[in-house]
Amino acid sequence: MGIVVKKFGGTSVGDVNRIQAVADRIKQAASQGQQCVVVVSAMGKSTDRLVDLANQISGNPSPREMDMLLTTGEQVSISLLTMALQARGLKARSMTGWQAGIQTNALHGKAMVKNVNTQAILPSLNRGEIVVVAGFQGISPEGEITTLGRGGSDTTAVVLAVALKADFCEIYTDVTGVYTADPRVVPLAKKIDEITYEEMLELAHLGAGVLHPRSVEAALANHVKLVVRSSFVDEPGTWVKGERTLETDLNVRGIAHDLNVTRIKILNLPNHENTLTQLFGLLGEAYINVDIIVQSEHDHEKVDVAFSVQESEETATLKLLESARESLGYEELISESGLAKVSAVGVGMMTRPGVAAKMFATLSEAGIRVKMVSTSEIKISCVIDKQYALEAVRRLHTSFGLDYAETKEPVLEKTR
Amino acid sequence: MGIVVKKFGGTSVGDVNRIQAVADRIKQAASQGQQCVVVVSAMGKSTDRLVDLANQISGNPSPREMDMLLTTGEQVSISLLTMALQARGLKARSMTGWQAGIQTNALHGKAMVKNVNTQAILPSLNRGEIVVVAGFQGISPEGEITTLGRGGSDTTAVVLAVALKADFCEIYTDVTGVYTADPRVVPLAKKIDEITYEEMLELAHLGAGVLHPRSVEAALANHVKLVVRSSFVDEPGTWVKGERTLETDLNVRGIAHDLNVTRIKILNLPNHENTLTQLFGLLGEAYINVDIIVQSEHDHEKVDVAFSVQESEETATLKLLESARESLGYEELISESGLAKVSAVGVGMMTRPGVAAKMFATLSEAGIRVKMVSTSEIKISCVIDKQYALEAVRRLHTSFGLDYAETKEPVLEKTR
Repeated sequence: MGIVVKKFGGTSVGDVNRIQAVADRIKQAASQGQQCVVVVSAMGKSTDRLVDLANQISGNPSPREMDMLLTTGEQVSISLLTMALQARGLKARSMTGWQAGIQTNALHGKAMVKNVNTQAILPSLNRGEIVVVAGFQGISPEGEITTLGRGGSDTTAVVLAVALKADFCEIYTDVTGVYTADPRVVPLAKKIDEITYEEMLELAHLGAGVLHPRSVEAALANHVKLVVRSSFVDEPGTWVKGERTLETDLNVRGIAHDLNVTRIKILNLPNHENTLTQLFGLLGEAYINVDIIVQSEHDHEKVDVAFSVQESEETATLKLLESARESLGYEELISESGLAKVSAVGVGMMTRPGVAAKMFATLSEAGIRVKMVSTSEIKISCVIDKQYALEAVRRLHTSFGLDYAETKEPVLEKTR
Repeated sequence: MGIVVKKFGGTSVGDVNRIQAVADRIKQAASQGQQCVVVVSAMGKSTDRLVDLANQISGNPSPREMDMLLTTGEQVSISLLTMALQARGLKARSMTGWQAGIQTNALHGKAMVKNVNTQAILPSLNRGEIVVVAGFQGISPEGEITTLGRGGSDTTAVVLAVALKADFCEIYTDVTGVYTADPRVVPLAKKIDEITYEEMLELAHLGAGVLHPRSVEAALANHVKLVVRSSFVDEPGTWVKGERTLETDLNVRGIAHDLNVTRIKILNLPNHENTLTQLFGLLGEAYINVDIIVQSEHDHEKVDVAFSVQESEETATLKLLESARESLGYEELISESGLAKVSAVGVGMMTRPGVAAKMFATLSEAGIRVKMVSTSEIKISCVIDKQYALEAVRRLHTSFGLDYAETKEPVLEKTR
């Protein structure tokens, strides 16, 4: 049996007892001959506590120093988990991001992994050691400690799986797999046994929250098999891989939602051929992620552009656009927060007639106004008022025939 | 003005307010033109909390993983202090031990500094930055994170002062300087303005607790001027340097005490020429620090050897000696804990007649039995029962004429 990368999130290593439980689980895997590389996040709320300390010190802490501070969280986890493994008679070795060869660019707070140098991990595995790697962190070419930003530990796990040619990569989390909708919102949601990278990517992007899109992108690009499973319950989980083998019915696979959406409208922008390039180039340079983009042309002279961003990026986006008002030459800037995005996802669904129509009909029957729409080969997303979002998810889950009907799979809660 | 290394201990950076106060003090120094290199320890009790976590996980955590765990404490401090400096408009940069070029051997938990590579710090200083270095930690030749053991942050500060050719090295602590005895024990103790390295070394070794002996040794070997001062009160403190300039009266300078002493006796050891070499070689290899050694010869065949160790080393020492009973060939092993050591220290004092006699007379007048004695050029130490230790310190302070008599210096407590 080959190398398996296992990632445990902050909840899974939230306290001493949970760390012991994770060690038991790894011991079991190792006893079956797996060469284990374990990626862990910071314990439970420890990152929040560190952020709070920083905010008490400074209103505007520098990203470099935030990285220096926050990376201590995973360093605590790797040492404690390694001690727990050693206490079970296993050979184990912890490694920080830089020791594990996670090489990134210099973008503090949201660094990208550029290379993984396996010259420390491979000899350690060959000595029969379990390698425990700090997730979320790396080292820049200048020797600076960096963090990968949100979902960073998933990304660490996937890039290690790629570099080590692992058999697969297990993402342990506090849910039992990927569901057709958030089970807290839709009691009838059911677990998906297998899903394609592309579907998972849309679900991840769309706020399903189980796997970060970056990690799925890296898995897709390198054909790393992922499995999402619970760290608390021993269940098969959801496999994310290249092709769907079990289910051939191309239809809507799941309903995702994201409750933190802001719409930005720019009115009466000069209609040059490079207007959009200039606008979105500016936002890209500031690392602001733009999601849905809608353009409407008044005439040959002027256009309106609307786009959605995460609520947390609203202030930075407005500040940037205000400062570029003259160079962009627009007349008015409007932002609207308190919005949400609901999406239906499934490979091939857009080639089936009526999917978009059914989505709009479902929303309009509920009296929910659609503010923006975006479609791709495998999803359709609508931006709506946040107050209607959960109702929309439930209605869409029903109208696309996803409600749990068979008895072979457990649901988290049975209500009606 | 040149480079000054400033070290702040755990109490000085114990919470957010204290970190802000330290930042204010550094800002003041920087505004006077000092190039500041700041060494900090972990915040207050944070190291204790980490040790407690480790003990919950494992009864016997490996030293490598303990180092991985504990070094996070200083990393938190350096990032927070750097944020506080930046919030004051200063340019500052934090560095972990490995980033600051603190190169050690591979002895986890008590590594020795072998070299300081200044190629990160010097360019940073030249850019006008205040460099904030994590104390207590370094990197081994194999790239492992190490800790320097007790007093490690003081040692970090002194080796940096040596490598950077600093003007001097300031040790900020929670007392206002080095005293003629512990002011909590002897209310009439007074602050010493200047002291030689050798005297400080004896006082440090003898439990004065203000400066770790390792750091004083490094300062002595490299003629780094040290000053011990309070992080809370703006006072001149105590200068530690090569020669005493102000006071020429060679006499007892201070009374030190250490309350954690165990005496180990080995009875009827074969009297070979290499018996002691073998015995203390064994202890040395196990990194057990032996303090006072007394040997008494029964005849040409057998000797008794007694020596003192720190109480915390008692179990390890006994275990080691039990296991070597056959190879050493001794008959009986006895340990006695609950002892203390009191010492009188002063350059040249042993060349003055009557110092030892006065010490013994003082103790015997108080009915205190002396169990072991050790002398050097600049100190005389007696091991006694712990219950009499503080009384002994007060009586010796008085009989050697150290009690505070003038009014020019403040005392911490006025009693009587």
